[in-house]
Amino acid sequence: MTNEEILGVTVFNLWRLVINRFNKTLSELSDEQLQQQAAPGRNRVFYLLGHLTAMHDRMFPLLGIGERLHTELDEPYILNPDRVLADPLSATELRRAWTEVNDKLTRAFEGFTLEDWLQKHTAVSEEDFIKDPMRNRLAVVMNRTSHASYHAGQAALTK
Amino acid sequence: MTNEEILGVTVFNLWRLVINRFNKTLSELSDEQLQQQAAPGRNRVFYLLGHLTAMHDRMFPLLGIGERLHTELDEPYILNPDRVLADPLSATELRRAWTEVNDKLTRAFEGFTLEDWLQKHTAVSEEDFIKDPMRNRLAVVMNRTSHASYHAGQAALTK
Repeated sequence: MTNEEILGVTVFNLWRLVINRFNKTLSELSDEQLQQQAAPGRNRVFYLLGHLTAMHDRMFPLLGIGERLHTELDEPYILNPDRVLADPLSATELRRAWTEVNDKLTRAFEGFTLEDWLQKHTAVSEEDFIKDPMRNRLAVVMNRTSHASYHAGQAALTK
Repeated sequence: MTNEEILGVTVFNLWRLVINRFNKTLSELSDEQLQQQAAPGRNRVFYLLGHLTAMHDRMFPLLGIGERLHTELDEPYILNPDRVLADPLSATELRRAWTEVNDKLTRAFEGFTLEDWLQKHTAVSEEDFIKDPMRNRLAVVMNRTSHASYHAGQAALTK
């Protein structure tokens, strides 16, 4: 394997590990438990799941790898705090949306070469990217992986 | 910048971001709040801090970059669950140990080239590393960064 291949697989493996770990937590929680708060007065796990699904869905345009699948999740789970708006999806539908979004992302990441990873994301201009080449897809995905871990730790508290 | 440099900086930036975010949470918690549980019946933030400090301290030998600084934290915060053993350090001492360990790691990572990142970690044999070159330092540090995010999410619930 070349260094580039090793590197791509290393990043990809961590993404997959974090998603699979969160899936395991989700599979251990009933639909009723999703309505529980991670800690008293804090976000419901349902909200965390909607939030992560929406943030991951936003990666399609951000990485320039396709159209969004679930824009309906932005208002209730990114733009507003928990319990302000009604949940637009049932627990079953939200679990399915989460899997759908991550499966599509995972398939895209699988095919990335190092060059693909180091391309600019779409929220940065060509000009700014020349000044700061760290605003690349790799940084976005590593950041989102870490973000998913952050909320996975919270969701696990309700098991 | 070369691809290799961009890559090293991208990984390093995420490590620093996660550590700094955790430091911010810590700075907002009093010593009394460190004794609080992240959720009812769960680990105290003090335990999470001891656990992360010990796990990060273990990276010195694991990455082959120096001697451990705080072996006294393994028994109470890795090998045992919370509240089985007495805390060996005061809150002030533990906060200091956390900073000391991360500062030393950060200085080491700062100087890593891509070749350095892709070297094997010390818990894998030369033989196994040839079969699985993903068992490298980069994977360890990315994994620990994600692990720190996981517990950072829990610690933030007590703010």
